[in-house]
Amino acid sequence: MPLLNYLRSMIKVVILGGGNVAFHLTAQLLKNKAVTVVQVYNRNLSKIKYLESETSITNKIADLKEADIFIIAVSDNAISSLSSKLISKNKFVVHTSGSMAMDELQGTSRKGVFYLLQTFSKNREIDFSTIPICIESTYIKDEMLLEKLAKAISKNCHHINSVQRKKLHIAAVFVNNFVNHLYHIGYDICTENNIPFEILNPLIQETAAKITSLRPIDAQTGPAKRNDTLTIKKHTAMLPEIEQEIYTLLTKSIYRTYGKKL
Amino acid sequence: MPLLNYLRSMIKVVILGGGNVAFHLTAQLLKNKAVTVVQVYNRNLSKIKYLESETSITNKIADLKEADIFIIAVSDNAISSLSSKLISKNKFVVHTSGSMAMDELQGTSRKGVFYLLQTFSKNREIDFSTIPICIESTYIKDEMLLEKLAKAISKNCHHINSVQRKKLHIAAVFVNNFVNHLYHIGYDICTENNIPFEILNPLIQETAAKITSLRPIDAQTGPAKRNDTLTIKKHTAMLPEIEQEIYTLLTKSIYRTYGKKL
Repeated sequence: MPLLNYLRSMIKVVILGGGNVAFHLTAQLLKNKAVTVVQVYNRNLSKIKYLESETSITNKIADLKEADIFIIAVSDNAISSLSSKLISKNKFVVHTSGSMAMDELQGTSRKGVFYLLQTFSKNREIDFSTIPICIESTYIKDEMLLEKLAKAISKNCHHINSVQRKKLHIAAVFVNNFVNHLYHIGYDICTENNIPFEILNPLIQETAAKITSLRPIDAQTGPAKRNDTLTIKKHTAMLPEIEQEIYTLLTKSIYRTYGKKL
Repeated sequence: MPLLNYLRSMIKVVILGGGNVAFHLTAQLLKNKAVTVVQVYNRNLSKIKYLESETSITNKIADLKEADIFIIAVSDNAISSLSSKLISKNKFVVHTSGSMAMDELQGTSRKGVFYLLQTFSKNREIDFSTIPICIESTYIKDEMLLEKLAKAISKNCHHINSVQRKKLHIAAVFVNNFVNHLYHIGYDICTENNIPFEILNPLIQETAAKITSLRPIDAQTGPAKRNDTLTIKKHTAMLPEIEQEIYTLLTKSIYRTYGKKL
């Protein structure tokens, strides 16, 4: 097929996986008119049983149908072995992991990455149109196809190589996983003191909103920033062991950022 | 004046301070029809000079006018000494600090706290109507007046005692100061790797939005939550010293939250 026609036609995809990313991506691609979800594969068939009326489902690699893109959305340590089972030098296979190199994929030279930089929970809907999709591919033709797929679902497509993506994934752990854990610590402190956690919500939302107009370094406030050692001492004295350690370490890190010593 | 009339009349306030909280609170109260800003005091007159055309300004305690509420919005360690200079047993004096007890106030028995649970930067406007205002007072009549003041500017008024407020302030440090610092670490990682920081913005906003519908403990995702020791090892190996310490400690804390051991 000539390249232009190929890029204009509907994209046929097979999705492999049954976790949060596979769940949300499948739902999104099923309703997208530029894409056909030819099949969904999962080792455990019961987890994708709910898709039965909408597409072909299977738990057998041997029964996989043909597609333009095979999207492996499984846990990091299963990517290599699953991809090696697909056995075809001509298949275009991509994974969705932030932390694994593209070369983790086996059994094909047509490799790619389709990394959705967002946090997914099964019971929460996400607006896909704003999700940054980080793509990478061995061949330019495949990268164009991947870009077409990305642009079909989001306005936020980026070409990010494997080295950058690994770093980006660490950054995402800091601003998502660790931030959420700090919310959890705030939640615990409130609950233990009969304070509704909702009281912190405007502060949490404003903290996140602030960095759309200010650099984080300019948005920083609080005892560590203003060198308020009295408050820092009082706070650490009130905290249990691990929270105290976290408080001290992050305070030290803020001090260092502003060229001070604790 | 009978109590009802007193509570119905305009509230006269004097604001003492020239920092971020005083700046935003003064601007808000100046435009509020239920409140008259009788005067603004600051030790350094040049910092409040911009208010000259809107209200009386002074840097002399002896020149302070009369008011229903004197709002001390200065740094924590200046509250006690400034309040002791007001010298009047009948003045109703409140401070705006999250971490100081109400009894920090000197020279009057009519004490109170008016704590705005929000992060303020001079160059960013805030929607006051959603800011949680935590109030406390020695006398019920004063608390009613303080509640009237709070409700004149926000829909989010809470009665919080000094013990609760101290804890709430620590929680605020975790969900605001420390969260912002984690944003800063994410910013640095992006910049060092030629990735635009904006790429993390949808993730940051969704992380904050998520906890309005899920408890943080249920919203947690990432390598630590799913016990992905391979990724954790790869990440820590790539990080410089302090960021590595932060990564390891927060991962340990997430492990502990879900009853696992690192």
